[in-house]
Amino acid sequence: MVLVATRNPLNIGAAARAMANFGFTRLRVVNPYDVAFREARSAVGAAPLLARAEEFASVADAVADATLVVGTTSVGHRELHHPLRRLEYGARLILRRLQQSSVALLFGSEKFGLSNDDLSHCHWLMRIPTVDRNLSMNLGQAVALCLYELVRDPKTAAAEHPDRVKPAPAAANEQITALWREALRASGYVNPLTAGSTEEKLRRMIRRWHITAHDAPVTLGMLRQILWKLGRGA
Amino acid sequence: MVLVATRNPLNIGAAARAMANFGFTRLRVVNPYDVAFREARSAVGAAPLLARAEEFASVADAVADATLVVGTTSVGHRELHHPLRRLEYGARLILRRLQQSSVALLFGSEKFGLSNDDLSHCHWLMRIPTVDRNLSMNLGQAVALCLYELVRDPKTAAAEHPDRVKPAPAAANEQITALWREALRASGYVNPLTAGSTEEKLRRMIRRWHITAHDAPVTLGMLRQILWKLGRGA
Repeated sequence: MVLVATRNPLNIGAAARAMANFGFTRLRVVNPYDVAFREARSAVGAAPLLARAEEFASVADAVADATLVVGTTSVGHRELHHPLRRLEYGARLILRRLQQSSVALLFGSEKFGLSNDDLSHCHWLMRIPTVDRNLSMNLGQAVALCLYELVRDPKTAAAEHPDRVKPAPAAANEQITALWREALRASGYVNPLTAGSTEEKLRRMIRRWHITAHDAPVTLGMLRQILWKLGRGA
Repeated sequence: MVLVATRNPLNIGAAARAMANFGFTRLRVVNPYDVAFREARSAVGAAPLLARAEEFASVADAVADATLVVGTTSVGHRELHHPLRRLEYGARLILRRLQQSSVALLFGSEKFGLSNDDLSHCHWLMRIPTVDRNLSMNLGQAVALCLYELVRDPKTAAAEHPDRVKPAPAAANEQITALWREALRASGYVNPLTAGSTEEKLRRMIRRWHITAHDAPVTLGMLRQILWKLGRGA
């Protein structure tokens, strides 16, 4: 589980507690508000997994070894560019993937949720089916609900057929994104004025391709060759 | 929903928020810690249903009109005299009863849970299936989980194909394959001796990417630009 830019130490603690309650062990935090993180860590009764939480400077690093990256959202005003799945169904897909490799589940800050840049690392998004889509959810509750849905009814989960294709880890997708962006830049495709949003779009597109672990190095090799040639020719 | 002897105003607020999120409207409190209750009521952004919450002096009064009274418990040390049901199953029984009459769902204080006296008003008890039965749960999270399970949609969980993503037609995939092959050739990637098999491999790989109808023209545009640059540089 990855907490991005969390502000309130109580929420970090509640998230860690929910993880312990439902048997999850790996907590990662990206750019936490330092004081909050230290407070949560030193709180009385802090879950041991909070003490072992890993800190990262970027979402890319935090999700590097995951083959599936899922963002959570309350879907307010924002325009979404990702498939959006209800928790009940999304959890099943996550469970299936968890049988063979690791999955990163992202939660944004209490106030703003996940940024567009954070979201661009995700394969798809999951929402908790609240009545009013404009009501936001307490972060600790959102984490508890998502994890509960994952451990709920183990019989159903065990009956699933795992995917036969091994997906590429997030780090490989990010490398492919970087090389592809480099190729576009070298060829003059990127409009400097909209470079930021193009990068996000590109990242989302590459995630949509669901590149397999087997194809990733091949794709990287191809891109390197193209880049080399683009560089030599320029 | 009935909160018995709740101490922390944040928890009362979180419980009210979860109720609003999942479409429940009737909140009752029994012997709340007065200051906490007033604080929660006056908090900025307090749910309207908190303002309408009814206060009772005893559990008996608070559950008087319910035909089914269910207590929640984390099952610690206490000896239980009630049937204990897992949340997934208990919620089904509650839902069934809700179709014809009202049900009271009781939550105890943060520190002690429901007392034996409180429990004696219950028909049966429900527990959230945590990994370690001795780990207690944050009250706001427990409320959210129980209500979520009540509104959870089993049909959604069983949904087979929720993706509305339109895949690219074969012709677009073939165009992408052709341009990509061209780029590889221009950059010297393709080994002439194995060109045939590389082309097949490439075609299969691009099919595995499941490019969408929306992404196909974007991808083609990118490849055209890269190709143009490769050609000009050569």
